[in-house]
Amino acid sequence: MLQSKLFYKTTKNKTADIESVSHDLLVRAGFIDQLMAGVYTFLPLGLKVLKNIENIIRKNMQHSPVNGQEVLMPVLQPKENWQKTGRWESLDILFKIKGSGEKEYALGATHEEVVSSLAKKSIFSYKDLPVSLFQIQTKFRDELRAKSGILRTREFLMKDLYSFHSTQEDLDKYYEKMIKVYLNIFKECGIGKMTYQTLASGGSFSRYSDEFQTITEAGEDTIYICKKCKIAINKEIKSENEKCPKCGGGEFEEKKAVEVGNIFKLGTKFSSPFDLKFTDKDATEKLVIMGCYGIGLSRLMGAVVEVSHDQKGIIWPKTIAPFLVHLIGIENNKKVSVVTEKIYNNLQREKIEVLYDDRQAKSVGEKFAEADLMGIPFRIVISEKTLKTNSVEVKERSKNNVKLVKINQLYKYV
Amino acid sequence: MLQSKLFYKTTKNKTADIESVSHDLLVRAGFIDQLMAGVYTFLPLGLKVLKNIENIIRKNMQHSPVNGQEVLMPVLQPKENWQKTGRWESLDILFKIKGSGEKEYALGATHEEVVSSLAKKSIFSYKDLPVSLFQIQTKFRDELRAKSGILRTREFLMKDLYSFHSTQEDLDKYYEKMIKVYLNIFKECGIGKMTYQTLASGGSFSRYSDEFQTITEAGEDTIYICKKCKIAINKEIKSENEKCPKCGGGEFEEKKAVEVGNIFKLGTKFSSPFDLKFTDKDATEKLVIMGCYGIGLSRLMGAVVEVSHDQKGIIWPKTIAPFLVHLIGIENNKKVSVVTEKIYNNLQREKIEVLYDDRQAKSVGEKFAEADLMGIPFRIVISEKTLKTNSVEVKERSKNNVKLVKINQLYKYV
Repeated sequence: MLQSKLFYKTTKNKTADIESVSHDLLVRAGFIDQLMAGVYTFLPLGLKVLKNIENIIRKNMQHSPVNGQEVLMPVLQPKENWQKTGRWESLDILFKIKGSGEKEYALGATHEEVVSSLAKKSIFSYKDLPVSLFQIQTKFRDELRAKSGILRTREFLMKDLYSFHSTQEDLDKYYEKMIKVYLNIFKECGIGKMTYQTLASGGSFSRYSDEFQTITEAGEDTIYICKKCKIAINKEIKSENEKCPKCGGGEFEEKKAVEVGNIFKLGTKFSSPFDLKFTDKDATEKLVIMGCYGIGLSRLMGAVVEVSHDQKGIIWPKTIAPFLVHLIGIENNKKVSVVTEKIYNNLQREKIEVLYDDRQAKSVGEKFAEADLMGIPFRIVISEKTLKTNSVEVKERSKNNVKLVKINQLYKYV
Repeated sequence: MLQSKLFYKTTKNKTADIESVSHDLLVRAGFIDQLMAGVYTFLPLGLKVLKNIENIIRKNMQHSPVNGQEVLMPVLQPKENWQKTGRWESLDILFKIKGSGEKEYALGATHEEVVSSLAKKSIFSYKDLPVSLFQIQTKFRDELRAKSGILRTREFLMKDLYSFHSTQEDLDKYYEKMIKVYLNIFKECGIGKMTYQTLASGGSFSRYSDEFQTITEAGEDTIYICKKCKIAINKEIKSENEKCPKCGGGEFEEKKAVEVGNIFKLGTKFSSPFDLKFTDKDATEKLVIMGCYGIGLSRLMGAVVEVSHDQKGIIWPKTIAPFLVHLIGIENNKKVSVVTEKIYNNLQREKIEVLYDDRQAKSVGEKFAEADLMGIPFRIVISEKTLKTNSVEVKERSKNNVKLVKINQLYKYV
């Protein structure tokens, strides 16, 4: 992509009403644009990151041991479904609409109601179980105080998976596998070391639910990390637990954190109101046992920026970066620009995502500052001097030193 | 994918309240599920088709000559934006919500209001033009009579692209290129021969807008196809045109059709209320000239089924089929099932999408009937008899004859 054609606008000035580092950097570097409080447009750079995160999550959801099948459920949901579970009244963040003919809808804040009524049409026998359905879809929650940029918004992209089981034992096994898969997703997205499995309240079937909390000062949660087993405990349940419920350890480290994922054993909480039953091997009818597993994609993107930046800007992990290479053009002579063009074309031919800063009106200093702000992993600069040794300057955004790399080894290097 | 694990449920019975052939077939074959009037879930099979259509459209929008940059704009839109253009009151299909703090929103029925205010932040000079932004995103329209399955729904996936130009001439050129790209998209999706560029009303800048209409009895529109130049004219403007406005021809064929795409020259209709201006070469300020270009993805999927089916079921074009191969297992002996398994694994290794009907409780007749209903392009059956010549039976869904293909030529054949 030629930077002169890219739709974005960076700014050196701090964002007004800055609520978090990620909010400031993502707006300033041209990744997101605020339409109103808690509602954002993803610009080309931002959408590329979001799609990379989406692909990592999809891959992990589809493959063994999770075996999720992807569906797409609606945003518009009938009032009657939400009345069945009592959440039409009890869920205070639910957006409600009145359409033509006085028909009332909720905007999907979560999809247990839809997926339970859907599952009822295809699950009849123990032979139909277990099965797992997931979607990557936009959710709506009328947060009173939307804040911190894309960390807490009214509209956001979420992966939600729902699993259906014939026995509690089967759910328990699946749930444990999902914990490992979740930790792997956060690792692949570059926040593995900062993200902790965290015991929290909210399980309607088991004593606790499990959150995945990423350590950052911008987070709204407080967690206590057990120094012995590294499992964390949310402040909301810490008071009832003087000891770590996992290992019995008694020493903790207190940290601020943001919740990037949350998994629940739902049990029969939703299969019961929807009368979602199956015929078991013994020919008796039983309620299906469910679990649900969420990750907020846009929040995850914000969390990555919170933990991976410096004073100059964002430092994207290679796995989710909008481009792998930022090629900076220095128009000091004809030969240099010809070689730069050629490297640009060759990188594209090698299927390496490259942003080429071809703008002639910008100084090298301005280009470097903007590159640091955007945070693309490899910065490549070609100059007359380095061309004498058939080399180019390569700087990794996450490192301080500049390396000279031979042009014929460049594609392998990045 | 093993069919025994696939989340779906086919039925031989006609759908209740059937509104169109595509509605009936897509529900019966397990591609979509109706949540309520005008609102559908895409099941695993249906979502695969939708994603294939999405990828064809995305590829065509990103590449030359369209050069669209993908963004993701919000569903929730502030009332003030819609008041600026007068559409808060005038657009009767607009869903309106009142959130917390009495804040009022519209659900995005279209995105001219959002994209115009967004463009204002990055377009300043003639050097910033032309630029094109597109998204593949969910739209909401409170249709009084949602009908015909996924042909007219209240919630649907749409590709909308917005182009920004400094001169009318530049818009005109871009618009003509887009017509060609649109025709190519419909061709790639398998409905090229049944889809006509159709002059319609509604251009606010030019006399006509252009619709793309696919011939089907399920369509709500009536079009007149000029026998000479094959351009069609929508009934709504036919009365004012006795002759074809393109070629002057006077003979027409009347057909029912469904609109799968629509493109408009917006001119300054939206740049004016949002004061979206640029500084031209002569240093004067001018209003940006806009065009907009839509395709309804879910409606396109329905239109494909309308034009591509027979009495037994759907006939998917290879380009958008949920799987390329339907492998039917016949468990008549050990050797056959071992070879079938092996072919299943080899097809997957060759990155050929294959659905393997591994269900033991179903008869061959039932499996064949279901395969015809689902409409996967190639049906492959392995039997003891054909194995004697190291061959398998291959039947194309769109053809009547069965061919014997040598196993070692199978991957090349499909």
